[in-house]
Amino acid sequence: MKTFEPRDPDWEARCRAKVDLQPIMRTLGIELTGLEPGFCEMRMPFRADLTQQHGFFHAGMVTTLADNAGGFAGYTLMPAGSEVLAVEFKVNLMSPAKGEAMIARARVLKPGRTLTVVSVEVSMLDGGVEKDCAVMQQTLICLPSS
Amino acid sequence: MKTFEPRDPDWEARCRAKVDLQPIMRTLGIELTGLEPGFCEMRMPFRADLTQQHGFFHAGMVTTLADNAGGFAGYTLMPAGSEVLAVEFKVNLMSPAKGEAMIARARVLKPGRTLTVVSVEVSMLDGGVEKDCAVMQQTLICLPSS
Amino acid sequence: MKTFEPRDPDWEARCRAKVDLQPIMRTLGIELTGLEPGFCEMRMPFRADLTQQHGFFHAGMVTTLADNAGGFAGYTLMPAGSEVLAVEFKVNLMSPAKGEAMIARARVLKPGRTLTVVSVEVSMLDGGVEKDCAVMQQTLICLPSS
Amino acid sequence: MKTFEPRDPDWEARCRAKVDLQPIMRTLGIELTGLEPGFCEMRMPFRADLTQQHGFFHAGMVTTLADNAGGFAGYTLMPAGSEVLAVEFKVNLMSPAKGEAMIARARVLKPGRTLTVVSVEVSMLDGGVEKDCAVMQQTLICLPSS
Repeated sequence: MKTFEPRDPDWEARCRAKVDLQPIMRTLGIELTGLEPGFCEMRMPFRADLTQQHGFFHAGMVTTLADNAGGFAGYTLMPAGSEVLAVEFKVNLMSPAKGEAMIARARVLKPGRTLTVVSVEVSMLDGGVEKDCAVMQQTLICLPSS
Repeated sequence: MKTFEPRDPDWEARCRAKVDLQPIMRTLGIELTGLEPGFCEMRMPFRADLTQQHGFFHAGMVTTLADNAGGFAGYTLMPAGSEVLAVEFKVNLMSPAKGEAMIARARVLKPGRTLTVVSVEVSMLDGGVEKDCAVMQQTLICLPSS
Repeated sequence: MKTFEPRDPDWEARCRAKVDLQPIMRTLGIELTGLEPGFCEMRMPFRADLTQQHGFFHAGMVTTLADNAGGFAGYTLMPAGSEVLAVEFKVNLMSPAKGEAMIARARVLKPGRTLTVVSVEVSMLDGGVEKDCAVMQQTLICLPSS
Repeated sequence: MKTFEPRDPDWEARCRAKVDLQPIMRTLGIELTGLEPGFCEMRMPFRADLTQQHGFFHAGMVTTLADNAGGFAGYTLMPAGSEVLAVEFKVNLMSPAKGEAMIARARVLKPGRTLTVVSVEVSMLDGGVEKDCAVMQQTLICLPSS
């Protein structure tokens, strides 16, 4: 994993405040469980009411957690007074999202003034064992605050 | 739009039954609003508790609706006694997901015995006017029922 | 297909000059066969020395043609004195790239000041009949000329 | 990096023979420089006649090398008498492809009976220093030999 020097000395407070502004975090029970420059980990406990027809987390939930973690991994390296938006992402679903909890770990591959590329790994805690579930490649854009 | 001949004469009942088996449909308020061979439309009314920090639908919700519609567009063309799973998808987010409701329209580009490729367009109803929001390319796999 | 109003009245001459600046066009025998605001078509005759192990065009060649057409579809709508670069793309390969010639048709879905989203369809002329081969979703960035 | 046990004891000879069957390898000067179970490295020296308008390798060449390496990384783990095809891939271009040579390193993330997911990193040797250039996520399908 690469190490990055954040441009904003107050990056951590800025990111944590922004995470808390997202209503979807509370609605879906997503927790921020790790934050470093260029890195973010989020977790989401299993909920049977967010599953598809086989009783696994819907792929949209896998994407929600991955996109969320990816956005904040990138946001740690953005300047004060900026906003982050996902421009696009691509998800490969490697095994069913079943288990007690889902974990997304996002790492910045390439930070940029305008665009940032992030890689996210999603795993499931299933019977206490962590198993690969999905991978995402994501592009973020850094916008001035409005 | 291409027209397709479904292999299963009972495709519609099979698909509608499967849609109803997904708990996430009710939890998020997703409605099936169109179903033809190779086509599926789903809608989801806006909910402020599923937004990100700017008050727009989270990109994960855009993906949830698109992936869901895409999966059932493909499933219309699969044989009786089969299951459908998304293998991968890619989403380009073109404008903020704001408005009264989100609409996803999915069209099969290439049905296959094993893999099916689907294109999905997502729009937002905003002040009664429909605006492009996102596009998805998706790959589905057809599995024998277990 | 959407219609677009180019920002640069001299868009066509600017695009055609840029196409000619690409050495890869001549090396691979790619021809520009259509250019309108927000649209570009390119063709490439089959060459046995650019195939993979089954005698079909390598997927990298499919991507080369699609990316090239996509870039110029977007470039038609960019201002004078700008440069275009592909930021990312995603390709679904739907059937083998075999036949006499490959055709890529690119259409802008969403032009933007910074980012432009393009959809590209690739087909093969095989025995005089055109068959779908691949689809691409692509993101371009508009940069000031350096 | 994960370690994998190949199913075919003769995996290496099978893969090397298949690589040599691809005419595009010689045409573009691509060399196989590393092969292990679940891993493949390929290199391609810079060629000015395969560049875009800025004198960098065209993104299609980046994709050609990445897709090729990815396909063989997956093929190492497939059974005797099988064929490999790329189903889809997605590329994020992180910096210009300039320098003396391009290197693609592909690692299998998830091998499967039907589908295999691969991650590929592409770098450029530029003044003797290796720099990140692009990343790919790729899906392969394993087919019985025809």
